[in-house]
Amino acid sequence: MTQQISPANFADWTGAQLARTEAALGQWVGPGAPAGLGQAMRYAVQGGGKRLRPLLVLAAREAVAGEGAEDTALAAALDEAALRAACAVELIHAYSLVHDDMPCMDNDVLRRGKPTVHVQFGEAGALLAGDALQALAFELLTPEHSAIPEAVQAALCRQLARAAGAAGMAGGQAIDLASVGQQLDEAQLQRMHQLKTGALLQASVMMGAACQGGAAGAAALAGLSRYGAALGLAFQVVDDILDVTQDSATLGKTAGKDAAHAKPTYVSLLGLTGARQCAQNLHRDALEGLAACGLGNTARLAALADMVLLRSN
Amino acid sequence: MTQQISPANFADWTGAQLARTEAALGQWVGPGAPAGLGQAMRYAVQGGGKRLRPLLVLAAREAVAGEGAEDTALAAALDEAALRAACAVELIHAYSLVHDDMPCMDNDVLRRGKPTVHVQFGEAGALLAGDALQALAFELLTPEHSAIPEAVQAALCRQLARAAGAAGMAGGQAIDLASVGQQLDEAQLQRMHQLKTGALLQASVMMGAACQGGAAGAAALAGLSRYGAALGLAFQVVDDILDVTQDSATLGKTAGKDAAHAKPTYVSLLGLTGARQCAQNLHRDALEGLAACGLGNTARLAALADMVLLRSN
Repeated sequence: MTQQISPANFADWTGAQLARTEAALGQWVGPGAPAGLGQAMRYAVQGGGKRLRPLLVLAAREAVAGEGAEDTALAAALDEAALRAACAVELIHAYSLVHDDMPCMDNDVLRRGKPTVHVQFGEAGALLAGDALQALAFELLTPEHSAIPEAVQAALCRQLARAAGAAGMAGGQAIDLASVGQQLDEAQLQRMHQLKTGALLQASVMMGAACQGGAAGAAALAGLSRYGAALGLAFQVVDDILDVTQDSATLGKTAGKDAAHAKPTYVSLLGLTGARQCAQNLHRDALEGLAACGLGNTARLAALADMVLLRSN
Repeated sequence: MTQQISPANFADWTGAQLARTEAALGQWVGPGAPAGLGQAMRYAVQGGGKRLRPLLVLAAREAVAGEGAEDTALAAALDEAALRAACAVELIHAYSLVHDDMPCMDNDVLRRGKPTVHVQFGEAGALLAGDALQALAFELLTPEHSAIPEAVQAALCRQLARAAGAAGMAGGQAIDLASVGQQLDEAQLQRMHQLKTGALLQASVMMGAACQGGAAGAAALAGLSRYGAALGLAFQVVDDILDVTQDSATLGKTAGKDAAHAKPTYVSLLGLTGARQCAQNLHRDALEGLAACGLGNTARLAALADMVLLRSN
């Protein structure tokens, strides 16, 4: 049976985690960059969305660490590793949005209710800001003279690089690009989204677990992996639903753009009712993955799955 | 006194190192990527230039390892680490060229004698190929189930991320972008090139040393760092000289484009004679750095410095 957490407790936890994530991003993004570039990087990251990926990292780490982690130097270092991983996945997500919005890709002018980065800083500025954000993600994961075990640093880089690259997010975007105006079946659509959105969401979960080194056994990792895969896909199905049911103001980005670009979606493929059913099946699959983990502290991950299913933007 | 290597020996060594680097790039770049993306990534990397950065990694590793490294499992793993590092720095270099050539940046159509990636694969294809190449660089440095010590993996990621990011290559490109049509003094021009070109060249040297773990002492690292910094800057000064003295066919890229873009260069600042003197001073500084290393196997690094000074493309 899935563990429960009260909405008030979850809101408290979420608020605290978001506060430390925002503070860390504010501290780590921008310094050391030439003025214009640092400004564009901060703009791309600030005021940004739900921070679902950082929350997944932090909740997954807590699930593996268990309640009441020891107050040791190592525990503090692993906690710092989780915060760095949370920021790193968010930087990869942020850079992908910057590049995705550019005229040669989706040519979008509105994101999170603000002008997109290339509108604000020019195309070359957006290109470089995205490039620098990707590099910064890996820099955050490998601090020098740190108590974070080097095995943890290497594992985090490994997982993030795979999820961001050609067999992950960038690969999914390439398939997306090639599929405009094409007829995809559900398996092809699923493959595209598993790479484009799912890989980084799933990696967020697995990176949270990796922050605890080898603490998670094979069964726990398998359960978390299933949770992450189902949640990642559910996120995209809900995205497709919101694209046709919400207006731009609620979304904070241009609504209806999938149809405008003749992009295949879960709604165009399964209809609205079918897409909603699909999202619910994936939500159930995510919770079953959690239940199979055998971990004692998964209530926040379950609440995050609810959040993905029930979100309105 | 600087060690010497005969031209024939150096050519043999270079040929062997290039052969294994090309083979490794051929094996590692492309597989796992969706068809179109993998093709664009390979195109960006293939047939590519002097491979100066990989040669610096491999020569620096040999300088620290010494002649006749032991035939142990660890030595083999460190050798593999050097090959992975050599490919990783080349991927970062290749991705930077792909993005730099795009219409919103330098808008260049010729590179290494071939149409640039965006001409061949479209702008969106070039954008994604560059993004995926950057991620792949970090993936190559962190293989799973490998005998490469995790401390070496983490150190390589750390150095590459810093050199590629906002305080390195991407930062230098941002300064370059902001400086078009501006009057820069020599200190400002140097700062721009230290970041834009120098950081990755210097990192190539230091990553080669890092492949040997803690084998290099502080004096050796300081000497290598000085060598790398001087060589990195010399490379750019020579680039500026070649841009006005060679034709496009010899360069394999569009000649005279700095002047066409009203970009400040060492030649525009110091004149051709002054720029040549500057390159020679930097070359001497690089060799002095090597001499200060106290390492017994630096002849190849010295020969690479000669190559940078005497190159014609």
